[in-house]
Amino acid sequence: MQNEGGNKHATTACDIGFIGLGVMGSNLTMNLVDHGYRVACFDLDQHKVDAILVKDASERDANAEPRVEGCSSYTELLSKLKAPHLIILSVPAGDPVDHVCNHLIDAGIHADDIVVDTGNSLWTDSVAREEQYKGKFIFFSTAVSGGEVGARFGPSLMPSGNPYAWTRIEPVLKAIAAKVDPETGKPLESFVPGKPILEGEPCATYIGPVGAGHYVKMVHNGIEYADMQLICETYHVMREALQMSPSDIAAVFRRWNEGKLNSYLMEISAEVLDQLDPDTKQPLVDVILDRAGQKGTGLWTAVSALQVGSPAQTITSAVFARSISSLKDERVAASKVLSGPEPVVHSDEQKEDIINKLEQALYCSKICAYAQGFQLMAIAAKEHGWQLEFGEIAKIWRAGCIIRAVFLQSISKAYENNEELSNLLMDPFFAEQISEFQSDWRQSIAQATIAGVPCPAMMSSLSYYDSYRTAVLPANLLQGQRDFFGAHTYQRVDKPAGKKYHLEWSDPQRPQTSIKR
Amino acid sequence: MQNEGGNKHATTACDIGFIGLGVMGSNLTMNLVDHGYRVACFDLDQHKVDAILVKDASERDANAEPRVEGCSSYTELLSKLKAPHLIILSVPAGDPVDHVCNHLIDAGIHADDIVVDTGNSLWTDSVAREEQYKGKFIFFSTAVSGGEVGARFGPSLMPSGNPYAWTRIEPVLKAIAAKVDPETGKPLESFVPGKPILEGEPCATYIGPVGAGHYVKMVHNGIEYADMQLICETYHVMREALQMSPSDIAAVFRRWNEGKLNSYLMEISAEVLDQLDPDTKQPLVDVILDRAGQKGTGLWTAVSALQVGSPAQTITSAVFARSISSLKDERVAASKVLSGPEPVVHSDEQKEDIINKLEQALYCSKICAYAQGFQLMAIAAKEHGWQLEFGEIAKIWRAGCIIRAVFLQSISKAYENNEELSNLLMDPFFAEQISEFQSDWRQSIAQATIAGVPCPAMMSSLSYYDSYRTAVLPANLLQGQRDFFGAHTYQRVDKPAGKKYHLEWSDPQRPQTSIKR
Repeated sequence: MQNEGGNKHATTACDIGFIGLGVMGSNLTMNLVDHGYRVACFDLDQHKVDAILVKDASERDANAEPRVEGCSSYTELLSKLKAPHLIILSVPAGDPVDHVCNHLIDAGIHADDIVVDTGNSLWTDSVAREEQYKGKFIFFSTAVSGGEVGARFGPSLMPSGNPYAWTRIEPVLKAIAAKVDPETGKPLESFVPGKPILEGEPCATYIGPVGAGHYVKMVHNGIEYADMQLICETYHVMREALQMSPSDIAAVFRRWNEGKLNSYLMEISAEVLDQLDPDTKQPLVDVILDRAGQKGTGLWTAVSALQVGSPAQTITSAVFARSISSLKDERVAASKVLSGPEPVVHSDEQKEDIINKLEQALYCSKICAYAQGFQLMAIAAKEHGWQLEFGEIAKIWRAGCIIRAVFLQSISKAYENNEELSNLLMDPFFAEQISEFQSDWRQSIAQATIAGVPCPAMMSSLSYYDSYRTAVLPANLLQGQRDFFGAHTYQRVDKPAGKKYHLEWSDPQRPQTSIKR
Repeated sequence: MQNEGGNKHATTACDIGFIGLGVMGSNLTMNLVDHGYRVACFDLDQHKVDAILVKDASERDANAEPRVEGCSSYTELLSKLKAPHLIILSVPAGDPVDHVCNHLIDAGIHADDIVVDTGNSLWTDSVAREEQYKGKFIFFSTAVSGGEVGARFGPSLMPSGNPYAWTRIEPVLKAIAAKVDPETGKPLESFVPGKPILEGEPCATYIGPVGAGHYVKMVHNGIEYADMQLICETYHVMREALQMSPSDIAAVFRRWNEGKLNSYLMEISAEVLDQLDPDTKQPLVDVILDRAGQKGTGLWTAVSALQVGSPAQTITSAVFARSISSLKDERVAASKVLSGPEPVVHSDEQKEDIINKLEQALYCSKICAYAQGFQLMAIAAKEHGWQLEFGEIAKIWRAGCIIRAVFLQSISKAYENNEELSNLLMDPFFAEQISEFQSDWRQSIAQATIAGVPCPAMMSSLSYYDSYRTAVLPANLLQGQRDFFGAHTYQRVDKPAGKKYHLEWSDPQRPQTSIKR
């Protein structure tokens, strides 16, 4: 970890140029300066440049030199950097990235300079950009997870691109990344400015060729969608079927957070449920409108899964759950017309039993959501020729990012034990866990089904599990249907794979088979 | 309907040019000649041209003139047609369509000539083509459903494009389309060559601007995926949980086909299950490998649903069910490692009860799959500025196409009763049907869940229903989570829609809210 530098360079060139000083950008900048880098900053909005100078002044030692320098143009930014230049972008995904890149070209960036995009870019855009800017500068991308707090005190980073550029970028990203205790797999407490730099496993590892990092981050977000939706479904069952209050549910979540479901999302869900609205003093969750927003990464994951033929139904259900939530007016109207089952009153003992089963249901459903995410990465990697290290990917998700959880230590171990693991479900630990808890999982879903509480993601996880472990699926009937109406052919269980057969179903002389192709 | 023409034009110009004489193309051609059109035919494979001449000779009256003329080049084809030329293409979707279009330009096609693409084209490709060939000729597209038999004796047609071109094409397509008894909504018996032309409602209606027809056909196919998968799941439950034989299940399907589930897919599923393999004399379904193929239209539907934010989870589950079926080797390996519930033996009485409930489960699940398809078309139509007539679309699906069913008469009525129907579930008839049968539906899914038989599509339909009828979904907790970790803001139930709020969750001075944006 590099943390020399800093103040001694006060009047000399800066280590890093930073463009885009929104919430994420300014927090990443402050994270960089905390780790000894001297940063030249630029934003189209000069107020943001001023703000970061003020922020630096308020956080650094009274007598110390400024650690950031403000710039008012791309040219000025380049002029303040050591060569070869290392420039980090934090601008909205899409056109703004190209806008900045083109301005940097106009300002005289060199072929061996590096531009690192940290935005939520679509991975194929990153691939196109590396090609597009070849010879002008080296376009490198790193996905960043962890939101604004992660950016400030240690995000999870998924860098990808030119491997020579990586050697230059590696110390920087590893310095600012979240750190994990390698033994327990738990995040170290956040770095506190002025305190010693944290020593631990940094949540930053080279993912592969450009685009691979953003692809992996995209899948991370798809898993995050599933994780959040699954938690919401257990909340919904407790709220609707068990008539529990938000704070009672918060207490359950807090208890679950002590065990195998320990995770950042579990922790903050309890916080959210315990929060009162300052205005009305009601539970805030009851005041928040139930229309979920989305930024696109979950949707991209689902689309990619469909395109490469990887069954990621839990992730996709979570995306659709957000879509249907946004049809608020229609749902309110439908709630008055469409009937459901009669509510059932449960004894306290029954409630306790249902809650205990729900914990296992959430756990098993979560395993399947992660299995889908890793399966998708494996299938995509094959398609794109990437060598993804799944154990390493699980490791960098143990801290800094939204899905951070002790659970990822087990995933990392699964891939360390068997690099060729075909599916997370096939790891002995996870296979055994689901075997132990599946009865509770099934009963939870059956109860929600009878009670009329929608559990799309939980159901998708179960049907994924049951489909995956079924040697003979009814796709044989389906192929029969397809051959019947469209002569789409079928393969036979008793003949070599790939050989296609067709029956002349509507022919009067049938049964007669003919080999097709 | 036009069926003058025909033989009297033997030595004069042809009415229609036809390019692409594969199974679909030659059947469409024979359908055209049956309806009195004289057709000039061309295919890159001259054998196919010869074959259609032989076919015509074998089917026409001994003394009659040939109804088709073979051509050996694009130029010859154009020279044999009445002006303005009407040319129909039946070539594989994608590049071959443009290949033919460009050859027609080289051969001297005129600006007021019409080219009708009947392939399974991606709808956005059709939009691009209309633009691309503007001024060269009029590119028009019509989606065709019904497979090879439909093409020969009456398909369901979804034409879209230039409305002036439609007036020229309309009599042709209405002549060859499947016909429906307008009273019962049932398909008329197929037209038999030599017998009188069928009088009934033709399954062809103008859908809208170019692309709209292929979009509607794409959604048709998405619904078809769901329909097939749902049938397969009921088969799977009977096969696995009830240990029934294929022919016993065929008998159940035949019984169901007498009632509200009456449909082409139900009918052929019974046929498939009753079919013995000529080689082994086993039920053919047991010989067919359970790896489902797909041609892409189901996938496109799911992707489009994700992109426009329309919750089409049953359709998407059906696509993923095909993906997971294709992982045959993995599933066989997993079946030896991953445990499921112990099998349960049922009495005959219990079996009968489970089967009766399954019928209702299939019916309710199917209603939801169709509701999703129509909802997707409505949302997409809004996005693309199409005026889709859902009653008319349901009507043209009553015959000719794969999902044909009496059921579509009820859908058509629902939209005739209320053109502004927000969702099929909100139609009084369907709302009442689900109300009546939902208990059986829920119990079927609960039983399959406990028994370990995967029912992804059925579960997706139920969670769609339960989500849609829920006034308050747990997306409020989800928005709380998102605001907590990413400052993504939320709306409030007690404030005007669209106004966004953010809580400073991690701020020591909280609770304090701030209005954002």
